[in-house]
Amino acid sequence: MNTPLKGACIFGQSGGPSSVINASAYGVIKTALDSEYITKVYGANHGIKGVLEDRLLVMDEEDPKELERLLYTPSSALGSCRYKIADPDVDDTDYKRILEIFQKYDVRYFFYNGGNDSMDTCNKISKYMAKVGYDCRVIGVPKTIDNDLFGTDHCPGFASAAKYIATSIMEVYRDCHVYDTGMITIIECMGRHAGWLTAAAELANLSGEGPDFVYVPEVDFDMDQFLADVTARYEQNKNCMVAVSEGIHYADGSFVSEAKTSATDGFGHAQLGGLAAHLAAVVKEKTGAKVRGIELSLLQRCAAHCASGTDIQESFASGKAAVEAALAGETDKMVGFVCTRENGYHCETKLFELSKVANFEQKLPLEWINDAHNGVTKEFVDYCLPLIQGETPMVKENGLPRFCHLKKVFA
Amino acid sequence: MNTPLKGACIFGQSGGPSSVINASAYGVIKTALDSEYITKVYGANHGIKGVLEDRLLVMDEEDPKELERLLYTPSSALGSCRYKIADPDVDDTDYKRILEIFQKYDVRYFFYNGGNDSMDTCNKISKYMAKVGYDCRVIGVPKTIDNDLFGTDHCPGFASAAKYIATSIMEVYRDCHVYDTGMITIIECMGRHAGWLTAAAELANLSGEGPDFVYVPEVDFDMDQFLADVTARYEQNKNCMVAVSEGIHYADGSFVSEAKTSATDGFGHAQLGGLAAHLAAVVKEKTGAKVRGIELSLLQRCAAHCASGTDIQESFASGKAAVEAALAGETDKMVGFVCTRENGYHCETKLFELSKVANFEQKLPLEWINDAHNGVTKEFVDYCLPLIQGETPMVKENGLPRFCHLKKVFA
Repeated sequence: MNTPLKGACIFGQSGGPSSVINASAYGVIKTALDSEYITKVYGANHGIKGVLEDRLLVMDEEDPKELERLLYTPSSALGSCRYKIADPDVDDTDYKRILEIFQKYDVRYFFYNGGNDSMDTCNKISKYMAKVGYDCRVIGVPKTIDNDLFGTDHCPGFASAAKYIATSIMEVYRDCHVYDTGMITIIECMGRHAGWLTAAAELANLSGEGPDFVYVPEVDFDMDQFLADVTARYEQNKNCMVAVSEGIHYADGSFVSEAKTSATDGFGHAQLGGLAAHLAAVVKEKTGAKVRGIELSLLQRCAAHCASGTDIQESFASGKAAVEAALAGETDKMVGFVCTRENGYHCETKLFELSKVANFEQKLPLEWINDAHNGVTKEFVDYCLPLIQGETPMVKENGLPRFCHLKKVFA
Repeated sequence: MNTPLKGACIFGQSGGPSSVINASAYGVIKTALDSEYITKVYGANHGIKGVLEDRLLVMDEEDPKELERLLYTPSSALGSCRYKIADPDVDDTDYKRILEIFQKYDVRYFFYNGGNDSMDTCNKISKYMAKVGYDCRVIGVPKTIDNDLFGTDHCPGFASAAKYIATSIMEVYRDCHVYDTGMITIIECMGRHAGWLTAAAELANLSGEGPDFVYVPEVDFDMDQFLADVTARYEQNKNCMVAVSEGIHYADGSFVSEAKTSATDGFGHAQLGGLAAHLAAVVKEKTGAKVRGIELSLLQRCAAHCASGTDIQESFASGKAAVEAALAGETDKMVGFVCTRENGYHCETKLFELSKVANFEQKLPLEWINDAHNGVTKEFVDYCLPLIQGETPMVKENGLPRFCHLKKVFA
């Protein structure tokens, strides 16, 4: 191993939040602060926009005890953005500006924490710096509750959302089975293109407190079949619980949530209440049953009080591994996980080529979806269960979470 | 104290579930099982309907270790009902049947766990048994997340819902402040007639992570003022978060959630997505901002994983006190709490006259609502904060809650 580059680092967060994105942040920041080669640790305020606008937060100025609270503070503590960087061959304005900032602060390490788009950003910056001959290590740190990054066994953030979804569904199951008068419950989970999160509802069936049916966006949604499924189960049990992905779509590709007309709504305007409310209305008209639609909404991606301890540890490890890899001379890579489950769960970090990760969506394997397209198989449960083990070390004050409060000193 | 009556007891659960109603159940069941005077402990399956239909569960047959899990199992483990018993002077059919069942099983103690309607049921049964000269002790055990029972300082179930609401709002606050592009968030809490639960959102402001405004149903809702509040705060901070009660209503008494026409919906039909979705649409049209409506729905009343330790202990204590009071010869009473907060929080159980409790709704004091009618005062926070202290002793298996699974042996 060569002597590592000496210089500053920038860490940024991008895309939608998760319960554990700050655990990754802490992995990067703490490891960078501890390194003798990294001279200064900057946090980009609102991701790459913070770099472009020269809004860098000095992590060295923060209280180490406060930084530790990042382990259980949800959402992006440094602020996030959804800024899609241009193709440098078309417009290299942003890249010139990033280079200017890197030179101004002597930045030799850049760590970016996000999903597909963020890995694309990472990849482009890395390639540009190599092209112009600026010596800099660029490593991506994965984050997405959607669990759709290519290569890695799973993505930091997914497991905590999965644990929250399964826990909440078990609790709602109890609530929905309390009367003997019959009830249908439709629970909407996130996942526009991938069904991982909705599939996590199946974990609740380990104790028999989960959904009767699970509908994911990897296969086409058939409203008639859905209504037949639900009606039959309701007639049999006087109860039916369903988990649906926000991204379920008809065979023509149109989202069910955007259906402009339906049995109950012929006014030709979009319904406001989202998919769960729409399906609840359709089912109510069909069955006459008491029907409740529940949208887990933002709660599923920020419920840090119910985060997976395993997810927190692995998120931290991925941030730490990113810094260690960069110090070892690696660049243009994303940290991911390689796991085995045969003799107990074992997880290790591994580097993946950014160019292979960027902009490719990893979906739920079709063979993990049942033949009737209304459930997921035991293979998924075996895959997912180890990820949700363990609890958060969250500290509470006044009976409520005591999240990290950064001083946010600008450079 | 006279020698207690010897005989069986029936315990029943009624009305909407809560996270801790089973902690009260455990208080009753364990104390009754331990009593030398109570010969048999029956659980009514689906409340008073279980008594009327002779569906009684034998609690003596359950594994004591399993029963202990009731402390952290949400919803009504014995099943609930929403059965309004008739006035005995008009129709005494139900009462004759209840007497028949009491005689069949030699029932000398009846404990009923619920809200206003359930206390009314208790009161009527108690009066009827006295009238016909059947020696029986009838004690109500309070339960309602709505916190609207008369006399008692607070109601078992409220604090756990309050803790969940405040926790979730703190987490959503973090999520909604992650971008620098502006956002308005509207969070809908339960409480059709009383604003206690929505007021609990204010607890999140202890750490500055709570709503800008809180709207409760104790005062009339003014849509123009609401839009002015939200717009001004959004223009100032590029962000605004609001907590609203499902029961907010206009000056004419009509619920905002049932408004058939609005700025965005002139089609004259009820919107499906509930109040949060409706207000989000109105605010979006007014401001052009990114707006998200979140309905906490059933989650707030069944999220046992986030229950208040204090609430669990007090719920257990109220069930225990009910049995002890009955053994001591009391009848026609409800157990409630008397609390002091001056030198640290102190809570004791006390008996209240059922006739005074039944069918009276205890609302949020008007002096705890600010003059602008868009927030609650420090007095509410001082009242509520001690109630949400402490965590649940919930045991997990496979990283998920391990709820109580009763054998449910019928008598």
